[in-house]
Amino acid sequence: MICEIVSVGTELLLGDVTDTNASFLSRALRELGICVYHRQTCGDNPARMREQLSLALSRSDLVIVSGGLGPTRDDITRDVAAELFSMPLVHNEEVAEQIRGYFVRRGIPMKENNLRQAQVPVGAEILQNEWGTAPGLWLRREGKGMILLPGVPSEMKAIFNHRVKERLASESGVRFANRILHFYGISESAVDEVLGDLMARENPTVAPYAGNGEVEVHVTAFGESAETAERFCRETEKSILDRLGEYYYGNGDTSPEQEVVKAFSERGLTLAAAESCTGGLVAQRLTRVSGASEVIGLGVVSYSEEMKKKILGVSADTLANGGVYSKACAMEMARGIRSLAGSDLGIGITGIAGPSGGTKEDPVGTVYIALASEKKEEEYRFLFGHVKSSREEIRFRAATQALILALRHFSDEE
Amino acid sequence: MICEIVSVGTELLLGDVTDTNASFLSRALRELGICVYHRQTCGDNPARMREQLSLALSRSDLVIVSGGLGPTRDDITRDVAAELFSMPLVHNEEVAEQIRGYFVRRGIPMKENNLRQAQVPVGAEILQNEWGTAPGLWLRREGKGMILLPGVPSEMKAIFNHRVKERLASESGVRFANRILHFYGISESAVDEVLGDLMARENPTVAPYAGNGEVEVHVTAFGESAETAERFCRETEKSILDRLGEYYYGNGDTSPEQEVVKAFSERGLTLAAAESCTGGLVAQRLTRVSGASEVIGLGVVSYSEEMKKKILGVSADTLANGGVYSKACAMEMARGIRSLAGSDLGIGITGIAGPSGGTKEDPVGTVYIALASEKKEEEYRFLFGHVKSSREEIRFRAATQALILALRHFSDEE
Repeated sequence: MICEIVSVGTELLLGDVTDTNASFLSRALRELGICVYHRQTCGDNPARMREQLSLALSRSDLVIVSGGLGPTRDDITRDVAAELFSMPLVHNEEVAEQIRGYFVRRGIPMKENNLRQAQVPVGAEILQNEWGTAPGLWLRREGKGMILLPGVPSEMKAIFNHRVKERLASESGVRFANRILHFYGISESAVDEVLGDLMARENPTVAPYAGNGEVEVHVTAFGESAETAERFCRETEKSILDRLGEYYYGNGDTSPEQEVVKAFSERGLTLAAAESCTGGLVAQRLTRVSGASEVIGLGVVSYSEEMKKKILGVSADTLANGGVYSKACAMEMARGIRSLAGSDLGIGITGIAGPSGGTKEDPVGTVYIALASEKKEEEYRFLFGHVKSSREEIRFRAATQALILALRHFSDEE
Repeated sequence: MICEIVSVGTELLLGDVTDTNASFLSRALRELGICVYHRQTCGDNPARMREQLSLALSRSDLVIVSGGLGPTRDDITRDVAAELFSMPLVHNEEVAEQIRGYFVRRGIPMKENNLRQAQVPVGAEILQNEWGTAPGLWLRREGKGMILLPGVPSEMKAIFNHRVKERLASESGVRFANRILHFYGISESAVDEVLGDLMARENPTVAPYAGNGEVEVHVTAFGESAETAERFCRETEKSILDRLGEYYYGNGDTSPEQEVVKAFSERGLTLAAAESCTGGLVAQRLTRVSGASEVIGLGVVSYSEEMKKKILGVSADTLANGGVYSKACAMEMARGIRSLAGSDLGIGITGIAGPSGGTKEDPVGTVYIALASEKKEEEYRFLFGHVKSSREEIRFRAATQALILALRHFSDEE
């Protein structure tokens, strides 16, 4: 099955909004084994939309359109699609009731024009929208199909995931299973080399994606039954973890901070972080995770030497001898914050995020990280600088590194 | 002039990459007064690319293509465009020298296939690329034009801004000037109402964009000379600030944290923040700005009551009576961190970011913010909750609010 994606909205053509719907749908279809050869962006102009949707129908089996289902006159996707499929639009009282109910539940008065969203092309299938007002619509004729989805990303994704995905999988006759595996501490090119033979295979597909200093490996397996697909996927996953297990930290929709909060909560452990160059990024990323309050008791951002001394108890000697950029300073910060917070683990981070402040010995990107707990102390020097690294990248990588080290700190005690 | 944007790359159709190039170009062209009616995304397949580029040329005066200029066999944009314009590709020694120079400067060996990027269609104009290897190319024939740009966003933007923008402005015969004004504390719909008459005008265009609890107002003026455009722009800016001045906080490419660092540095002032529900976001956003170390001496993330008492000196009475979610607690945090850090301003933030923890009196989204300096103390209760607000949105808005309050705290002393 060949599918085409059309994103509708003048705001896209004006550059006010970046089209994340198209990339979501592209990835979702790829994971269903459905090919996408073309994507178009289309404004709220009826004549041009008619031309663009006709073109899409002429070269693709299925066209997924997002946007233009709103309540205003600008929203014309429903009308144009109904016309192309020769299905007159009629008022659908069931949909109207759902729309009224949506406003009642939220205690907001409904405007009359919202009932435009209750217009349905005769013969089209309604894809209920529990997450907003405009339902999705699935039009079919002579072996061609067109699915209309709202442009609001959260509604578009919800309707796709709950009303469309499974059925497309079943119509494309392919069953699939997939995994997203997260690795840290290895480069994409090294993953490429280690997994080269698996990546060369057609099924399951194995694809690494690098970003933010991490590598995700996506595994997608297709089979005649869900069980076969799942078995292919599991076998490949095992083979990947056999080779890269030491760099693996989690799977699915996760992040180092989510894994830390999960692992520490499960074991009833707490941590505290004293941050200099990362400026509170470790604390901020951890507290983004709901439930973090059980895990992180205290975070301190101490840029100045004085605060490092006064609050964390870093000794004047250490600052005078090794300086603020040293393993010793990071370790005293880690011990200091641990004792102040009374936590199981203390983390200390000090370094140079740039753009200025680098020296020959400690260029921009040099970061010292120390971890202290009752039974173990670890200290490291990292260089996160690259030719193109920005201050923000260096900070992000240093925070990720600290989180990964925290995650592994207690793992050998299990 | 009608312009069309084509984004090239199978990685786009697979959803591995979100197409930010298309939105950058859309916005840039809009600001030049050039209309974009169509955008297409195109994979690395020669037959389909030929079709899509022909279609674009048939309906638009100028086609801007980004991507597919790399050194590998997949990169075919140059070849397809040369064929469409009947301009044979020939090796250009000057470009080859620049590419070699690029690698020499970085101390990286050049691969032979990089010289594919020195192939230039006969008669095409070369748009030098100082930021990477592949130069941009500008092909013209019979009143139609096609500009090829690399797909790497930083290179695409740099070549567009430095080699293309001015000339498109001059070819479109229009001079323009623009401003981006930032407002906080007013909703987009209120801005809409207040600026309705200005927004209805054709020149200058006035467009508000909301996001992250802020509203940006973009002003773009066109004129026959740069001076006229600039004058239109300035007049409209003045009229906007006359009406919305109390909500204004900065212009251009800025943010509340950048304005705080700028304003505090200029006056030699320092601040310190004690954060509970925002989990270090204020510190983290401030320290993202280079030069923040002069301004922020200390940040503390104190989730637990114990740490609020032990480190910030919040009294047991306050915690027992008003509780941790109260103006009194926020104020004691603000005073405590100010005294601990010895800073000019102390900020205290406590509240409920959710998703759980809300009560009838203090629903999710309730945030108490206090500011303390020698001459002034302020304390507030905010409700950042909306039907759809996530934990992250509430945290972000609370941090923004605190930064804006900090920015205004000393302003009446000027």
